[in-house]
Amino acid sequence: MKNNPAIPTAKDKILFTPGPLTTSLSVKQAMLHDVGSWHFEFSALVQKIRDKVLVVAGLPQQAGYEAILLQGSGTFGVQAVFATCIPPNGKVAVLANGAYGERMALMLRHAKIDHVVLRTPEDTPNDPIALDRLLAADKAITHVAAVHCETTTGILNPINEVGRVIKRHGRSYIVDAISSFGAIPVDFSAAVLDYLISSPNKCMEGVPGFSFVICRRAALLACEGFARSLSLNLLDQWKGFEKNGQFRFTPPTHSILAFDQALQELDWEGGVTARAARYRHNQQVLVQGMQQLGFRVYLDPKVQSCIIAAFYFPDDPKFTFPEFYRRLSDKDFIIYPGKISQADTFRIGSIGRLFESDIRALLTAIRTTVEEMGLRLKAPVPQTLTAGAIAVAEVS
Amino acid sequence: MKNNPAIPTAKDKILFTPGPLTTSLSVKQAMLHDVGSWHFEFSALVQKIRDKVLVVAGLPQQAGYEAILLQGSGTFGVQAVFATCIPPNGKVAVLANGAYGERMALMLRHAKIDHVVLRTPEDTPNDPIALDRLLAADKAITHVAAVHCETTTGILNPINEVGRVIKRHGRSYIVDAISSFGAIPVDFSAAVLDYLISSPNKCMEGVPGFSFVICRRAALLACEGFARSLSLNLLDQWKGFEKNGQFRFTPPTHSILAFDQALQELDWEGGVTARAARYRHNQQVLVQGMQQLGFRVYLDPKVQSCIIAAFYFPDDPKFTFPEFYRRLSDKDFIIYPGKISQADTFRIGSIGRLFESDIRALLTAIRTTVEEMGLRLKAPVPQTLTAGAIAVAEVS
Repeated sequence: MKNNPAIPTAKDKILFTPGPLTTSLSVKQAMLHDVGSWHFEFSALVQKIRDKVLVVAGLPQQAGYEAILLQGSGTFGVQAVFATCIPPNGKVAVLANGAYGERMALMLRHAKIDHVVLRTPEDTPNDPIALDRLLAADKAITHVAAVHCETTTGILNPINEVGRVIKRHGRSYIVDAISSFGAIPVDFSAAVLDYLISSPNKCMEGVPGFSFVICRRAALLACEGFARSLSLNLLDQWKGFEKNGQFRFTPPTHSILAFDQALQELDWEGGVTARAARYRHNQQVLVQGMQQLGFRVYLDPKVQSCIIAAFYFPDDPKFTFPEFYRRLSDKDFIIYPGKISQADTFRIGSIGRLFESDIRALLTAIRTTVEEMGLRLKAPVPQTLTAGAIAVAEVS
Repeated sequence: MKNNPAIPTAKDKILFTPGPLTTSLSVKQAMLHDVGSWHFEFSALVQKIRDKVLVVAGLPQQAGYEAILLQGSGTFGVQAVFATCIPPNGKVAVLANGAYGERMALMLRHAKIDHVVLRTPEDTPNDPIALDRLLAADKAITHVAAVHCETTTGILNPINEVGRVIKRHGRSYIVDAISSFGAIPVDFSAAVLDYLISSPNKCMEGVPGFSFVICRRAALLACEGFARSLSLNLLDQWKGFEKNGQFRFTPPTHSILAFDQALQELDWEGGVTARAARYRHNQQVLVQGMQQLGFRVYLDPKVQSCIIAAFYFPDDPKFTFPEFYRRLSDKDFIIYPGKISQADTFRIGSIGRLFESDIRALLTAIRTTVEEMGLRLKAPVPQTLTAGAIAVAEVS
């Protein structure tokens, strides 16, 4: 963004963030149209998008799943699942190893829904064995909620292993795949995955304005009467789409036009597999380059997703994140602050319309910035992976 | 929208709707940028927009009001006010004469907030005298909620008179000004107006993606601990803006860039007064032209807003709305269906980037369509204004 964002400039700053991210010009150009939200052509477009989301998820039309778009950010989608689908006497076990797991617990507390949080440290994936014990011990738990890629650190959680445990215990499964959908495949058959929430402005490379939820139809239909919210009522939202193809309330028409184009471009790229390969390559180039500069990666490579990586602050008193950030911004590169409670880190995303050339340009800018700030960086230190799960009961 | 909305075409269909509406090309072009939602330039832009919204509302910075942006549609903003600001033992009186008043009651029912609905017929404004009696009789009522322009019919409600009644009784006041803000001034001094909700994609001529709420700061701060929802927690949303200028959750960055441009263009037009004059002129040309064609207007002109007008279906069995609508759509004009429970109507909006030439072009298309369908239309029949208010208690 230059001084006046309304005047098109030659070049935007490049976003190495977990989204909103750098999108293609053609995705943004799809927004140069005003369409009627009630118009039949728009309703047909929404239906086409809902079908296409299921295809991206690898779900054939006969699999019994529905894709529902909902206004607001990804967080609104997660809250809508809780607000719509947890029965009055339900109880949710939340698997948390970062801010997004904790946010789920916060939503449940607001909604006065009984819940328990099963925590692992921020550098440690969800623990299926601890979950197995918890579900065996607490028969009141009706739903388990997990975060696929926890953007706090970029850690990838074992949602398929977790799903198999849940399936064995006959509970329902909710997955926040906001930052992973479109790049990290989900095996819907491994678990009875009832609800998966994602967002257009992450690996789908669209723009923000809504979230989407993939629901198992039978699970959704069983939620009649549970809704605690009008706006965030997923079941009514679905009924609206089924009735006349329309949103119940004003949709972000322009964001939806952009998403249609983004879905098209995902196809052009070669689908989820090809996109994942690009992101992985972006991140390999990034991590190797950062390590060569002397930065240390927060996570063990075995649990690192291809979405975003966290790097420790350099161990040099001359380093301050605000100065580092601003100097990179002055060079037209936007990185992301850290969110880890136990360590000082910053984050660099590898998703969006970014290619190896962008990563290499960022690395050059980081090298220059390190020199400008006169930082002395050390060689990377080998990491040990801490383990173990801590269950903390939180009664709403 | 042509066959492929992602390929820019020469011309979009013109939207005579209550929004999303036809916006200027420059408003849409402001979305051709990807900006970082965490970036300091974006935070500064959000602050500038929040300040500017108060200026449009006619509120000096020292007046003790705050503007808060919230992801989702206008409905999400209204629900956020209820979810955040009604105390646990609070009770809301809803003034209803259409779908948007009824929607408020529905939100309150979902949230299990005690409420009473004071109804007038759909062609009759809110009744301040009936409200006066209700507030005198029911001391449990803490808040009164009204709709400024009820888009169901286009009726303008007497929010200042209602506000004076509320002020006399010392209750709090919530106004849904979603479809009026930016074109119909609100007198914040006439009443103690605690919360006013609006949306960028109505008279502000921006694009959808969020709502904004103008709050009396002291009223908002008194709501600590009431929030029933994480995403729709207005107080926390405000605290986030105050802390670091940021949204708590991913904002619709592109819609916000468009809104900045839309605010600029409102200034260029000459502000609320000039915009209101254009809309009024649009509607006068529309109503006169429609009456000349033989269509009857639903509302008495004395209570008709300049936002949208409802017209009775022609009294000819050859008329069907779907055919009428589709024939106009084929000519690139999008009108809006009716929503009135007691009469068959369709609606035509006069807001958005529309001028007399657009209205005249629409009238020509309607004349042609009437001829194509072989409709016989009658001259307008004088209307009588029904009166009287009906209070119906709804216990949540």
